[in-house]
Amino acid sequence: MKPHRASPDTEASLIRVIQNLSQRKASPRSRLALSIGDDTAAFRGSTGSLTLLSTDALVEGIHFDLHYFSPEDIGWKALAVNLSDIAAMGGNPLYFTTSIAVPPDKPSTWVRKLYRGMLRLASEFQVRLIGGDTCASPQGLFLDVTIIGEVKPSEMVTRKGARPGDILFVTGELGGSAMGLEMLRRHSRLAKRYPEAIHRHLRPRPRSLVGRFLASHKFASALIDISDGLSTDLHHLCEQSRVGAVIDAQKIPLPGSATRLAPVLAKTTLDYALNGGEDYELLFTVPAKLRSRIPPKIDGVAIHEIGWITKEAGGCSIIKQGRTEKVSPGGFDHFIVGRGVEGGQI
Amino acid sequence: MKPHRASPDTEASLIRVIQNLSQRKASPRSRLALSIGDDTAAFRGSTGSLTLLSTDALVEGIHFDLHYFSPEDIGWKALAVNLSDIAAMGGNPLYFTTSIAVPPDKPSTWVRKLYRGMLRLASEFQVRLIGGDTCASPQGLFLDVTIIGEVKPSEMVTRKGARPGDILFVTGELGGSAMGLEMLRRHSRLAKRYPEAIHRHLRPRPRSLVGRFLASHKFASALIDISDGLSTDLHHLCEQSRVGAVIDAQKIPLPGSATRLAPVLAKTTLDYALNGGEDYELLFTVPAKLRSRIPPKIDGVAIHEIGWITKEAGGCSIIKQGRTEKVSPGGFDHFIVGRGVEGGQI
Repeated sequence: MKPHRASPDTEASLIRVIQNLSQRKASPRSRLALSIGDDTAAFRGSTGSLTLLSTDALVEGIHFDLHYFSPEDIGWKALAVNLSDIAAMGGNPLYFTTSIAVPPDKPSTWVRKLYRGMLRLASEFQVRLIGGDTCASPQGLFLDVTIIGEVKPSEMVTRKGARPGDILFVTGELGGSAMGLEMLRRHSRLAKRYPEAIHRHLRPRPRSLVGRFLASHKFASALIDISDGLSTDLHHLCEQSRVGAVIDAQKIPLPGSATRLAPVLAKTTLDYALNGGEDYELLFTVPAKLRSRIPPKIDGVAIHEIGWITKEAGGCSIIKQGRTEKVSPGGFDHFIVGRGVEGGQI
Repeated sequence: MKPHRASPDTEASLIRVIQNLSQRKASPRSRLALSIGDDTAAFRGSTGSLTLLSTDALVEGIHFDLHYFSPEDIGWKALAVNLSDIAAMGGNPLYFTTSIAVPPDKPSTWVRKLYRGMLRLASEFQVRLIGGDTCASPQGLFLDVTIIGEVKPSEMVTRKGARPGDILFVTGELGGSAMGLEMLRRHSRLAKRYPEAIHRHLRPRPRSLVGRFLASHKFASALIDISDGLSTDLHHLCEQSRVGAVIDAQKIPLPGSATRLAPVLAKTTLDYALNGGEDYELLFTVPAKLRSRIPPKIDGVAIHEIGWITKEAGGCSIIKQGRTEKVSPGGFDHFIVGRGVEGGQI
């Protein structure tokens, strides 16, 4: 691709469009000293807080398919998965940057829709776009979001704090996103009949207020978001905490539409719940003495006890119909088979 | 692309490789509370400072071509362009995150080399990799870097502070990177004879210490890095400051190899210097009364006076052989011709 000479009167500046959309949608924050339009953005940290930073990219053909993702869905989801990472630390999300590489067949109106979807979620969660990069892509859309949040050091919840005897909880329902993805891929006509499953995949809702609730009350000893699937993320939590876990298959919360969807889907509902990925629910541990303090719902989201922590480092098992089986990490990996490298968050 | 099931004993985990490389290369920083391996990284802001944040992506086929970029070059350059943004604010770079989408034909050894190149520069500039994302790309490599820096509010230098009568300066030499690019593209055999031009394109050196020097002495009224070309970035500075500028063609510093290279290149040396882009030098303005305080070299980098600021908002001219001509923004844009949208930093 040959870089081209920029013309001062180019039809429409994507950057300016994004600037305008961003300024219209987000409420100003007094800690922001400098936003879009200079070499960097600049903001003041709040005294005593830790700044949280996370990056997650969406790549066309890997994370989404334009046959069933609208530009608004892509924008929404790219920000949602990053908000979920801040929630998984118990933090408050504040700002984000975007880096987008746009293929030649996507006009600026399409890109504008993508930013609309993103900035709608941003407005709802009161986070602000403060900078980024735009460029062309020879093939395929690439969208990277970096999010900045903050948390008091005493409230931050990592993956490391789970102790034997702690109780395991999850938010919401598991498996819905993967079921929705399969509907979209293989049963596109049926898909319209199950909008809630589809929605779970296209427009996940980050559990920001649940994360803040757990952190501010100091209820959670360890916390992670379920992006790769319960089985994989449970392993992540157990590895970092150097503990094991037992989960009860009957207690894993399944989507309401699961029973109706089961006949058309390739795998068991439990398989989707364990290994499906992209649910963006929270998985957390609570010391046994605080168990009764966990309410049945937080911010309207149901909280389910699904098991407990053991001292067997890295060993995860599941109780199914009275029998105990080993659980291997089986969640999905955004890397192609046979690459010999694992994908995921650094 | 079908996501695949991760195996617990996958040959080599790219994430762990990057973690190990990162920990080996960078010196620990006590303000870092949490690095690679959790949902986010976490660090303490230093009291009273502004946090600076910037994102820049490199896309295969747009910003680099694998025929002449080694993986180490790509890693180096992706970080260098981000360090340059922090330098352009007068800030200190601290941390960075990377997001990488890797095409199927690139083995993990290749990606490791890319991170080696990046972490070599990181080590030299004492910045630390604290997180990111890795995934597959169906086609083409995408590499996005987000950098975090800091600066005292009283020392931050934006693009907005230039006033009529201020003197315009640039660091180093201009046009070398674009000349190097042309050699690599069209005269690959000759290219080896001019390693300095090639190097300017493949391994730009961010002017971090020059930026800090100007900021800490409060010499610069406005500051920008030259990523799109002198003509374009001068327009950016003038637009933001609502001023104009006059530059003297004879004073624009050209690379030492320019005279020898001129016969084989398609454009005039001045054209490369004005419109070539990717030099990552600094362009800054200094109030006339401070002009004599600017040393001829800062951190070994030559500083050149090239013109002055006028009150004619947005009007940029160049004096060439005694005649004054208008300068239009002609630097390059990482967007494909005919897209109707402009690329660049948000």
